[in-house]
Amino acid sequence: MHEQLENIDEILLMGPGPSCIAPSVYSALSQPTLGHMDSDFISIMDTIKENLRVLFQTDNRLTVPMSGTGSAGMETCFVNLVETGDNVLILVNGVFAQRMTDVASRLGANVDTIEFEWGTPVVTDQVRDQLSKKDYQLLCVVHAETSTGVCNPVEEIGQLLAGSDTLYIVDTVTSLGGIPVKIDTWGVDAVYSGTQKCLSCPPGLAPISFSERAIEKLQNRKNKVPNWYLDLSMIINYWEGKKRAYHHTAPVNMLYGLCEALNLILEEGLDTVFARHKKYHEALVKGIENLGLDMLVDPGSRLPMLNAVKIPDGADDAAVRNALRKEHKIEIGAGLGPLAGKVWRIGLMGHTAREENVDRFLNALGKSL
Amino acid sequence: MHEQLENIDEILLMGPGPSCIAPSVYSALSQPTLGHMDSDFISIMDTIKENLRVLFQTDNRLTVPMSGTGSAGMETCFVNLVETGDNVLILVNGVFAQRMTDVASRLGANVDTIEFEWGTPVVTDQVRDQLSKKDYQLLCVVHAETSTGVCNPVEEIGQLLAGSDTLYIVDTVTSLGGIPVKIDTWGVDAVYSGTQKCLSCPPGLAPISFSERAIEKLQNRKNKVPNWYLDLSMIINYWEGKKRAYHHTAPVNMLYGLCEALNLILEEGLDTVFARHKKYHEALVKGIENLGLDMLVDPGSRLPMLNAVKIPDGADDAAVRNALRKEHKIEIGAGLGPLAGKVWRIGLMGHTAREENVDRFLNALGKSL
Repeated sequence: MHEQLENIDEILLMGPGPSCIAPSVYSALSQPTLGHMDSDFISIMDTIKENLRVLFQTDNRLTVPMSGTGSAGMETCFVNLVETGDNVLILVNGVFAQRMTDVASRLGANVDTIEFEWGTPVVTDQVRDQLSKKDYQLLCVVHAETSTGVCNPVEEIGQLLAGSDTLYIVDTVTSLGGIPVKIDTWGVDAVYSGTQKCLSCPPGLAPISFSERAIEKLQNRKNKVPNWYLDLSMIINYWEGKKRAYHHTAPVNMLYGLCEALNLILEEGLDTVFARHKKYHEALVKGIENLGLDMLVDPGSRLPMLNAVKIPDGADDAAVRNALRKEHKIEIGAGLGPLAGKVWRIGLMGHTAREENVDRFLNALGKSL
Repeated sequence: MHEQLENIDEILLMGPGPSCIAPSVYSALSQPTLGHMDSDFISIMDTIKENLRVLFQTDNRLTVPMSGTGSAGMETCFVNLVETGDNVLILVNGVFAQRMTDVASRLGANVDTIEFEWGTPVVTDQVRDQLSKKDYQLLCVVHAETSTGVCNPVEEIGQLLAGSDTLYIVDTVTSLGGIPVKIDTWGVDAVYSGTQKCLSCPPGLAPISFSERAIEKLQNRKNKVPNWYLDLSMIINYWEGKKRAYHHTAPVNMLYGLCEALNLILEEGLDTVFARHKKYHEALVKGIENLGLDMLVDPGSRLPMLNAVKIPDGADDAAVRNALRKEHKIEIGAGLGPLAGKVWRIGLMGHTAREENVDRFLNALGKSL
């Protein structure tokens, strides 16, 4: 093997993703490649769909992993559902909701935003006000904002849409597999995620799920989806039905990895997995506070899997991150946008959320400050 | 590991891709995941870019693998270079050129096509005629048409554009790594490929390369690229320059696999690799003819890595393919479009192009007919 590859350090991945990968997921990645139309591979695809439905808590038949990273999942939801001139309301309190506005605008949507301070959650009353003023085809929010560590009240926001024709798009890139995601109960019409966060699979796939209402909008579009690669009206014929139609060549080995990663989560049990994230998040926060540092987000809105810690006065942001990476082989994340230089982002995602990792990190951070 | 994954058969992949994977590429896929902004990972990205430039025979600085399969490479070239109302000429003699017309049309291009019989190559004189009648912003052709096994005269077609402003897009999904691809010499402005053909890496990445002229068109667009995920004006800032800017989370482990696959090709040497493809293609054709079967494509236009064999009278297309798969663990491809039921597609791509595989296949086909 190329020497660069042979000598890769095993890093404790405690940033905003990718997260640590379980040994059996690594093994799955290197199982023998099958053809993308092989019936044995189609059985594996069926297992993946079934297990994704459990994770998303949905009966949606269109529940599949897209052949791209989490951002391709975002692109998929918007490009399939936005038609030129659609009114789209996006609730912005971080980088990933900002990205939504860029994606939707490029597709010809009329985008309105409501902005909230970074590090604080969306305020449902402000959303209610805006919805009473104007009709929207789409309302979009990020469940777990990876740039700030805030959990947005997606269930409450969804309740505002009861009985309306507005479709509800939710980003669950960082939440899926770490906290409950119940898209049918919450009235979500289109959802996307990524594999490299709480699913603990390497980056490269984007699970999505569309409700029947969303499929109906897709099927009644005036124009074709302006993106052949992500057009779900064709992709569904590869992932569903008795006779599968070739669309593009699926990323076979990445899908093996996802299959195994989902399997591990379901074997452990969703509730146990969520409790484990919560438990080690609490241990981490306690340790952070013991070191005299502060969390960015108020306790009521904190995500367990993404912990934004305020960089204390006098600490050198990059120097501390470099010391952790070089001396302790631990990766943490820098702040993004207005939070650059102000916070560190400590991930406890999926396989990373374990006692020994919290201890090792707190010990290393103490030495590096 | 999930039992479906533990028991995957090792199949001899002799279809239109994916192809067989070398053991060290499988090992590379399961090396420890690094963060997508980690300096060790950025070194691996740099190696990949350098090696892709050798494969494409180019000095283009914008030479990177996109985070999607080969079809995402096609989408990338069109979505970055097509502006609404552009005149686009597409030379069609198979499924993948047809796909180009669909992709370009969805992006608002005025698409003209010249159609050639499937199984025959593009006729350069007809292209010259059409170019004399109308100005085109883009001229597009598939080098190695995977649906028919035809090699198109991409060098000659490129010569028609000397001194013109027309940008030249070439699909090298199946040709790259199997026959010479010299994009600078041929005057190609945008090229894309896939990993699962002659590069012998699992599907999931799409190497692309853009000339300076193509980058100039991208930078002078009237509107933003209508696809955030594939917007090269942002992606270049992640793959190039001293300070890398986060765009999306790169598919880290897939890139390890690609790095190793490129490494193997360059270690063997490009000329040796091309000669190997030619040698075992000739052995295959001889064996096919000894069995009394005929090739679809005339010898002068045949691809070495994709061999379309006419299904003989009396043979049951699906039954023969099933027997090969079930009894002999060999995958071959069915015909597509107008060639469905009329040809089998036998791949000799990358690691698959070896004597023992040709022998095993010919023996199995003889028994299955």
